[in-house]
Amino acid sequence: MPHDILAIGNAIVDVIATATPEFLAGRSIPKGSMQLIDAATAEALYAAMGPGREISGGSAANTVAGMAALGCKPAFVGRVADDQLGAVFTHDIRAAGVSYTTPPLAGGNPTGRCLILVTDDGDRTMNTYLGACQELSEADLDAAMVADAAILYLEGYLWDPAAPRAAMKKAIEIMRAQGGKVAFTLSDVFCVEGHRADFQALLANHVDIMFGNEHEVCALYQTESLDGAMHELAKHAGIAVVTRSAAGALVLANGERIEVPGEAVARVVDTTGAGDMFAGGFLAGLAQGRGLADCARIGNIAAAEVISHYGARAEVDLRALVKAKLG
Amino acid sequence: MPHDILAIGNAIVDVIATATPEFLAGRSIPKGSMQLIDAATAEALYAAMGPGREISGGSAANTVAGMAALGCKPAFVGRVADDQLGAVFTHDIRAAGVSYTTPPLAGGNPTGRCLILVTDDGDRTMNTYLGACQELSEADLDAAMVADAAILYLEGYLWDPAAPRAAMKKAIEIMRAQGGKVAFTLSDVFCVEGHRADFQALLANHVDIMFGNEHEVCALYQTESLDGAMHELAKHAGIAVVTRSAAGALVLANGERIEVPGEAVARVVDTTGAGDMFAGGFLAGLAQGRGLADCARIGNIAAAEVISHYGARAEVDLRALVKAKLG
Repeated sequence: MPHDILAIGNAIVDVIATATPEFLAGRSIPKGSMQLIDAATAEALYAAMGPGREISGGSAANTVAGMAALGCKPAFVGRVADDQLGAVFTHDIRAAGVSYTTPPLAGGNPTGRCLILVTDDGDRTMNTYLGACQELSEADLDAAMVADAAILYLEGYLWDPAAPRAAMKKAIEIMRAQGGKVAFTLSDVFCVEGHRADFQALLANHVDIMFGNEHEVCALYQTESLDGAMHELAKHAGIAVVTRSAAGALVLANGERIEVPGEAVARVVDTTGAGDMFAGGFLAGLAQGRGLADCARIGNIAAAEVISHYGARAEVDLRALVKAKLG
Repeated sequence: MPHDILAIGNAIVDVIATATPEFLAGRSIPKGSMQLIDAATAEALYAAMGPGREISGGSAANTVAGMAALGCKPAFVGRVADDQLGAVFTHDIRAAGVSYTTPPLAGGNPTGRCLILVTDDGDRTMNTYLGACQELSEADLDAAMVADAAILYLEGYLWDPAAPRAAMKKAIEIMRAQGGKVAFTLSDVFCVEGHRADFQALLANHVDIMFGNEHEVCALYQTESLDGAMHELAKHAGIAVVTRSAAGALVLANGERIEVPGEAVARVVDTTGAGDMFAGGFLAGLAQGRGLADCARIGNIAAAEVISHYGARAEVDLRALVKAKLG
């Protein structure tokens, strides 16, 4: 079992700029949201936004980059194009220690990018042009690749386009057949709204470890109350982890409910990737045989690091950071 | 006179990663230096280095981006290719408030990039693949563009390739003929070593404002002693500014010698762009009619901001920062 985890997700480069709430309001972009945009909208928004910094992103890609930084051996499947941003994504994820062999798309849409507008409060508003990401299909997966991993990790964001969804369904089938674990992140309220029945069925039948924030799990069960959502989540077998920003995380497992407080952060610069890094820290803890409370603490430590600077990939030695805090 | 300054320089995107001194030593890359590398070396080094962040760079481009942030109206001439990194450079410099209209190179080398390895002490080691930068020629300059500006600013880095050098010489000629000012940065010891006679002649005959660090001015006059170099510099008319890292800056002008201490920096993260931002701050002060000591202080403030984070472009509102410190 050479890989601790195989993740399937969007292969995206983030373009991060600062913006005022007025800039967002003037363009009717809901602050704090993620929205999908087409090429023309991406071009117009890019022309209007401030100077950027390009840092590799993609939700599941961030998660496995975090796991690699914590000493795990992950693999990633996702599609870039054969262009400079694709080369950037490919370099960064490999340099982070993640196996990545999906061939780049030639002659089609360019590499996906996410135009991220960060406001003074550290909140991030994401505008995603998926580009080549959508051109991932069943043909890019092979059974051996999935069989090679202990856990399959899927991002809800990628449930939207049909071909990648089919690839993820095939991967679930293979992983379930071999008795491995399936982990899934709800990704965003808009994903939950668009695929509620699918996501509920996934949780009920196939998912062993679920990640979502409080808004996402409330949307999943169409309730205003976190307790109501937790009540529904408790019906499923497996582990459900609900993140609550600065308030930390709740873990449901085997009838138990564990609350872990958030980590202190001196200054929140950019919350991009907080949930991704939490999942990376949690799954790394799990892969390394830690108890669930420690897994959540590692998730919080990784999330706190990544929101203290621009970009969704760790800037410090996460392994040393966790060791210093948890031993 | 719609532009305060016209800068001619390399149009480069920086690719910034952390590295250990051992990584540099193992590849015989002198720590703290700038070296030019070819495409094959760039590819091999990129494959070996850690995950990066892409942030627009280029010495003179950084300087004018800093000036724009300080309220000036700069223009920039430099060549990118018609590719994604070229689009990044173009977006960033325009979004910073700099006029930039040099047409991108189609079908030749890709956009130039600088692979920057930052060590724990904040020192930066630069490995530059010039690519399309070198394809700048006299044809890309027109007299009106130079006539349009109060100051012409040139980077020593670009003196190396022949076609851009010819373009800079033509620009000097036009600017001198119209009685405008010429500013020049020595850029790097290797530039000085390679073009000592040219640089000395430039200073003696054409340059009104010179920037260099203490190592560069010592190399220029082949002396070990800063005082010796200052003695030589004092022979020229105009302004000479010598930067001394944390020790601040020395300004020679009209027989006067002004010493300005450096700004305190809580933590030096990445010194990339320190000299560029100093020049930007100094020239902005000059354009806005400040005294020379204040110009140097603005340079120090801008440099201190840029070394407190990764990347050579300011992350905060420089104008507000200077106002808070100097009024």
